Amino acid sequence: MRYKSQLRSVLIIYDHELVLSLALLRLCSLSYCLSSLIIWPDFIMSSPSVFGVASFCIITGASRGLGRELALSLGSHLGDKSLMVLTARSSADLEDTSKQVSACSPGVTVKTVTGDLGDESKAEDAITRMFEGVECSQYQHAMLIHNAGSLGEMSYICDLSPGLQTLRQCFTLNVTSCMALSTKFLRVFPKRDGQRRTMVHISSLCAIQPMKSLSLYCSTKAARDMFMKTMAIEDSELRVLNYSPGALDTAMNDAIVTQAGDSELREKMAENKSTPYFLTTAATCKVLLKLLTEDTFESGKHIDYWDVEVPPKN
Amino acid sequence: MRYKSQLRSVLIIYDHELVLSLALLRLCSLSYCLSSLIIWPDFIMSSPSVFGVASFCIITGASRGLGRELALSLGSHLGDKSLMVLTARSSADLEDTSKQVSACSPGVTVKTVTGDLGDESKAEDAITRMFEGVECSQYQHAMLIHNAGSLGEMSYICDLSPGLQTLRQCFTLNVTSCMALSTKFLRVFPKRDGQRRTMVHISSLCAIQPMKSLSLYCSTKAARDMFMKTMAIEDSELRVLNYSPGALDTAMNDAIVTQAGDSELREKMAENKSTPYFLTTAATCKVLLKLLTEDTFESGKHIDYWDVEVPPKN
Repeated sequence: MRYKSQLRSVLIIYDHELVLSLALLRLCSLSYCLSSLIIWPDFIMSSPSVFGVASFCIITGASRGLGRELALSLGSHLGDKSLMVLTARSSADLEDTSKQVSACSPGVTVKTVTGDLGDESKAEDAITRMFEGVECSQYQHAMLIHNAGSLGEMSYICDLSPGLQTLRQCFTLNVTSCMALSTKFLRVFPKRDGQRRTMVHISSLCAIQPMKSLSLYCSTKAARDMFMKTMAIEDSELRVLNYSPGALDTAMNDAIVTQAGDSELREKMAENKSTPYFLTTAATCKVLLKLLTEDTFESGKHIDYWDVEVPPKN
Repeated sequence: MRYKSQLRSVLIIYDHELVLSLALLRLCSLSYCLSSLIIWPDFIMSSPSVFGVASFCIITGASRGLGRELALSLGSHLGDKSLMVLTARSSADLEDTSKQVSACSPGVTVKTVTGDLGDESKAEDAITRMFEGVECSQYQHAMLIHNAGSLGEMSYICDLSPGLQTLRQCFTLNVTSCMALSTKFLRVFPKRDGQRRTMVHISSLCAIQPMKSLSLYCSTKAARDMFMKTMAIEDSELRVLNYSPGALDTAMNDAIVTQAGDSELREKMAENKSTPYFLTTAATCKVLLKLLTEDTFESGKHIDYWDVEVPPKN
């Protein structure tokens, strides 16, 4: 469709020259007749809408906070015969999210997969269960939202626990399980005519800006951003987004305010709570949905909430 | 010294106004007299030279390629009573490097630590052995060169092995063991008057630019760059450098040329071998030593060989 619009624009440029008008009108008609015969690139010709179609959608870390809000927001935009797979560690909270999504979105079947993506021995099984019985041809849009993540140890580097196992847990949850899940997703949903695929990483400012006493979180977020960027260049028909949601009113933010090793960071985050920079999960979901709906972002890019919304004046 | 030069420059600006000359000359003399009384920041007052002093220097992955060259280049610049700790998996190759360093640098004691930093069960022990018997007060300069690293699996993301253990090995070698080693280094060598500390990560273009079929390597390098950046802001007196050495004539480059999943990347890297962009390990070490000697880089920055040298004309 984009190419068709361009063609029309080109024609209109010459339209003021009366001598060409008739010929152009005939050419326009001809272009419309021909358009059905022209071979448009697969993605443009066959990709369905972002929302309102039968979708398969995985959201990790969906038991609370931003993950729950994502499930509710996305759920209400999916079409009939959609399947939403929600995963988290906490079974009870996950069921709560599931019930809320089902109540708002009757056309969406919700499946819950309880499992700890930070536990190497359990993550692979959880990933397998997410796709059990899934037939890719049943969906017009497949989405994977990497939301699960852990802050890890919030100490200065000189104070980090020396054990590699402690470090590993954070990397398993934030990075390697995300990689394994992405690989599985791409295998179950390879490039296919008539199907759209979207992958979103709920990133952070920490992916691009170092923060004192958050070295683990910053490093894992940078790794995940880069992984997504690589995926974007490897698979040009997959829509990939590193979305940084802003400072949110969630348990994760509270954890930084109370536990971060750097007192300046703790104070800054606490002060932030009384400014317009502190967002609700609903506000950030709205911007993410706007980005996905408009679908004009550069695949693989890191986009912050404040790249979309106008920052408040000081 | 930097502050003194700035002061001199400021004075010279006004020197053309004859009426001020005499007063300025007096002021200059006064500033030099006063300089010995002024309290310069600790780092400027007490930090010894980068090279030529008794140094403690760890180089990981020192058995071959760039690691070996780094050991030889740095060894010849360390002062008497220096201790160089070389680590790698291969004992035989490591001993070869050790002999070569000892032959060129008689004032340097070389200690080898064989161990696999990619093996979680062995890495912690290897890290402990690197610092055994090390008394920080014996050295005027402590350096840690993170050179060890693995390309990991070089497949497209959709073809990556699904096992988390395979992914973990690459992350343990490239990231978490590097983190644990850094933590240990900062504990053995905390901020101390009269002592300089330098940490270098042998980074890569892959840390800032995604490359097809190198998602693992790119992600780990991005994580390591970010970890180093966080260290730089946490410890303003530690000199931190992410140095990207360029395309090198090493086994790692050969591995990409022969094994990378992306044929375009393989071809590009193979073609690169016959251009001036393909560097010897000696050439890139020269630039790294230049950066360390001049000591003007912004701590934590990612600096590429071609940011220092003038790229060849096409």
